[in-house]
Amino acid sequence: MPAGWAYLDTAATAQKPQVVIDAITRGYDTTYATVHRGVYQRSADMTLAYEAARERVARFIGAASPNECVFVRGATEGINLVAQCWAVTQLKAGDRILLSLLEHHSNIVPWQMVAERMGVGIDVIPLTADHAIDLDAMAAMIRPEHKLVALAHVSNVTGAVLDARRAADIAHRNGARLLLDGCQAVARIAVDVQALDCDFYVFSGHKLYGPTGIGVLWGRAELLEAMPPYQGGGAMIDKVSFERTTYAPPPARFEAGTPHIVGVLGLHAAIDYVDGIGLGAIHAHETALVHAAREALRGFNSVTLYGPEESAGIVSFAIEGVHPHDIGTILDEGHVAIRAGHHCAQPLMDALGIPATARASFGVYNSPGDVEAFARGIERVTRIFG
Amino acid sequence: MPAGWAYLDTAATAQKPQVVIDAITRGYDTTYATVHRGVYQRSADMTLAYEAARERVARFIGAASPNECVFVRGATEGINLVAQCWAVTQLKAGDRILLSLLEHHSNIVPWQMVAERMGVGIDVIPLTADHAIDLDAMAAMIRPEHKLVALAHVSNVTGAVLDARRAADIAHRNGARLLLDGCQAVARIAVDVQALDCDFYVFSGHKLYGPTGIGVLWGRAELLEAMPPYQGGGAMIDKVSFERTTYAPPPARFEAGTPHIVGVLGLHAAIDYVDGIGLGAIHAHETALVHAAREALRGFNSVTLYGPEESAGIVSFAIEGVHPHDIGTILDEGHVAIRAGHHCAQPLMDALGIPATARASFGVYNSPGDVEAFARGIERVTRIFG
Repeated sequence: MPAGWAYLDTAATAQKPQVVIDAITRGYDTTYATVHRGVYQRSADMTLAYEAARERVARFIGAASPNECVFVRGATEGINLVAQCWAVTQLKAGDRILLSLLEHHSNIVPWQMVAERMGVGIDVIPLTADHAIDLDAMAAMIRPEHKLVALAHVSNVTGAVLDARRAADIAHRNGARLLLDGCQAVARIAVDVQALDCDFYVFSGHKLYGPTGIGVLWGRAELLEAMPPYQGGGAMIDKVSFERTTYAPPPARFEAGTPHIVGVLGLHAAIDYVDGIGLGAIHAHETALVHAAREALRGFNSVTLYGPEESAGIVSFAIEGVHPHDIGTILDEGHVAIRAGHHCAQPLMDALGIPATARASFGVYNSPGDVEAFARGIERVTRIFG
Repeated sequence: MPAGWAYLDTAATAQKPQVVIDAITRGYDTTYATVHRGVYQRSADMTLAYEAARERVARFIGAASPNECVFVRGATEGINLVAQCWAVTQLKAGDRILLSLLEHHSNIVPWQMVAERMGVGIDVIPLTADHAIDLDAMAAMIRPEHKLVALAHVSNVTGAVLDARRAADIAHRNGARLLLDGCQAVARIAVDVQALDCDFYVFSGHKLYGPTGIGVLWGRAELLEAMPPYQGGGAMIDKVSFERTTYAPPPARFEAGTPHIVGVLGLHAAIDYVDGIGLGAIHAHETALVHAAREALRGFNSVTLYGPEESAGIVSFAIEGVHPHDIGTILDEGHVAIRAGHHCAQPLMDALGIPATARASFGVYNSPGDVEAFARGIERVTRIFG
């Protein structure tokens, strides 16, 4: 992170610690080679490093086996993969998918594409008064037609943390599978997919202090094994002929082509970095910053706060009579970076009756001084527009 | 490239020049931010850099517009995208796809997946005596049912260079579209998609001295505009609601989710690097190395050479009575890295009647000394197995 800059957009993407940058540099420099193919030592070493990263991912999220962890471009691709390979083969016309009103577009559009192709319906769980997914409402509305529930583990707009285990219990009692979008969760709270009892879990590396272009889809072994491949190509096959091609078992089945090798190495370093600090410590740190930011914002009469008091590192707000983009621009002049917009959650914006919010989101590198700089910026906004 | 090491596996993946590593490091360090979203300056700057890379790609391959250039994970994803978004919507049962016998699995399996889903047939163009795609045979066998021809611009096994313009003319005379797999071509010969008159062109960044996890799909504007999205998510939408979602125009329509931002920056640096040397100079350099390697191999009675004399930087061969993997292992002991295997081209191996070949492939960093080290290694192999 550059000095003198309050970066409060970690929910969009996290800045990178030096250990991650070093791992990437090393990956492209003295150790670079392809994986799974070379007969020479350097390629064999790279293959070991690539698979060691998969084991590290499995340990990080409590997967039963590394083979349940598929490397994808990011959470978006992970969800699309489940949509195209699981939902398209498992759902039939008349089935329904249950989402929530606060989902990111990446957890809406892939299901709309499935719905259109398969004649499947989509239902939407409403929110509580403080903009969290209403699980009481979920329990009341779920029906046997719902074969899949797909929910954000942590909202990218409000920071609301889902009671994922309760959502899994409700889904499973009704015979539905649960997919969790863990993009905002994995860098903010400890995740154990077996304890949560979900069926699919996805996250992006770049929001976890790791490289761009890499992410993880975790799925229960028996679900992945029953799924057809997503993309065809090298590495995902068993045997190819023009008459008949057979596919490799998961996870290779879902990793066609030369993978993002160095992205995987960088993700390994990022997980080591986050686990080295500890997610308990990170969550406590970010919670303190959220409390300080909310407290500061409450000092302005014109501010509306969204989301629950106890959020995971994210605060969304609006200032009466000021467009969120103007808030962002004025804060930027004071070297405070926030995000303003619909946050890829237009249905939530529609429900809130606003086109956009301003959002401050925190990471391990933020300090109380960043919140003070943020508060000074908000004070300036209210003065300019006051 | 590490000193004292003859890296002859550039066809699998290229080692990275320092300018590319530096661009990646800089991308993750002092300039890192997300694209297309931030209201703060640093994100706006990163968006400009991201789109400048797209313009650089367009200039590199002679595209009519940057909007014809879609960033994908690699050539494999590019081909799968065309298969799922173009072929699935444009082909109907009874139509046929024309491939060649030397295609990489990534240019076979995606079409088999389309064929199975759509009731489409696949035909296979045979090879000439020196293992190049036989365009006379293509001209004789193409029929109006063939709606798509998909061919390697340069073979990853034999280095044979396709007369792509002639292939395009044959395809177009018959009303078919031509996709070229340019993975081995873009780093070895100058490519101008408009001069070649192809319809789709794909390549991977990591074989072009660039980062892993990034590649390019080029498509004619009118074809891309008519294609539905590939993955759903952020950035590819116009407006999302649970009732109705509309999509952004290309290329954004095909780039769902946070892209591999730093991979794109690294690809830009790699293209600058390759263009700085000049593809004419690179091709002349690699051709000289190929000639020297073939000459050295011809000195051994037990060696069989595959492919044409005039290949683009790639030599495949076998040694009687020695498994290619043993060749690779013994060469590795002398710090010479080659590849041994089916090179993701099992149908070609079947046609050659062998399970595998040994392959030496060259890059800008190779020298005549590397060929000498290679020849010494082969001499050792023949001595051990002689």
